[in-house]
Amino acid sequence: MPTKYLHTMIRVSDPEATKAFFAILGLREIRRYENEAGRFSLIFLAAEGDEDAPVELTHNWDESGYTGGRNFGHLAYRVDDIYAMCAKFQATGVTINRPPRDGHMAFIRTPDGISLELLQAGDALPPAEPWASMPNTGSW
Amino acid sequence: MPTKYLHTMIRVSDPEATKAFFAILGLREIRRYENEAGRFSLIFLAAEGDEDAPVELTHNWDESGYTGGRNFGHLAYRVDDIYAMCAKFQATGVTINRPPRDGHMAFIRTPDGISLELLQAGDALPPAEPWASMPNTGSW
Repeated sequence: MPTKYLHTMIRVSDPEATKAFFAILGLREIRRYENEAGRFSLIFLAAEGDEDAPVELTHNWDESGYTGGRNFGHLAYRVDDIYAMCAKFQATGVTINRPPRDGHMAFIRTPDGISLELLQAGDALPPAEPWASMPNTGSW
Repeated sequence: MPTKYLHTMIRVSDPEATKAFFAILGLREIRRYENEAGRFSLIFLAAEGDEDAPVELTHNWDESGYTGGRNFGHLAYRVDDIYAMCAKFQATGVTINRPPRDGHMAFIRTPDGISLELLQAGDALPPAEPWASMPNTGSW
């Protein structure tokens, strides 16, 4: 299964204001994930018929505003084998900022520091070394 | 025709380094636009079968590096009527940073300052006021 683009994520300080903004464009909420413990919400917006290319809004409940680079989030790609993909990046010197300890998700950065999310296609892979015990490095 | 997601753009200081990075993920160049006068290149990358959701790399030839917010570019959406869409945004108080003077392209910003590109579906519309003579406002 080849790599597939999934979504772009942007951080928002006021989800309702952003939803109203995107509603003008014809985008509506197609799914939402609320995390009480982490105090954040993930809200996916897409136009009708365009549900396979949503924008993901991340709302950190305690973050009141963004003025610079942190308001952009990441690009996300579905990959066939997240361990093999991380190993390939690592072999070229790319830091695996958030290793796929869970067999499901990893974060790396492009040469200009743009965050990329890698998501395992289908079910998470069984935990495997060196990933399972690899700590995070930096931010993403 | 409903709004459709087109691409995410990111600014890159070294296109070859970024192409090599995305090549690991399975993305290859699917089209390119070189502008000698403007001294910039636009390079679209996508995985096989995923050509309708490319990442656009913008390379400003005289820009040597990005450390913060400016390395993220924009989200792009195709819209059915770019004049009607800009009028709708404007009616809610959104600044049209780059008005659609050419009937083809406009830029606005989300409530958190993320740039959005609007592109007219199909051929450009004939020039029309108030857009044709509206100056740019700020950056995007």
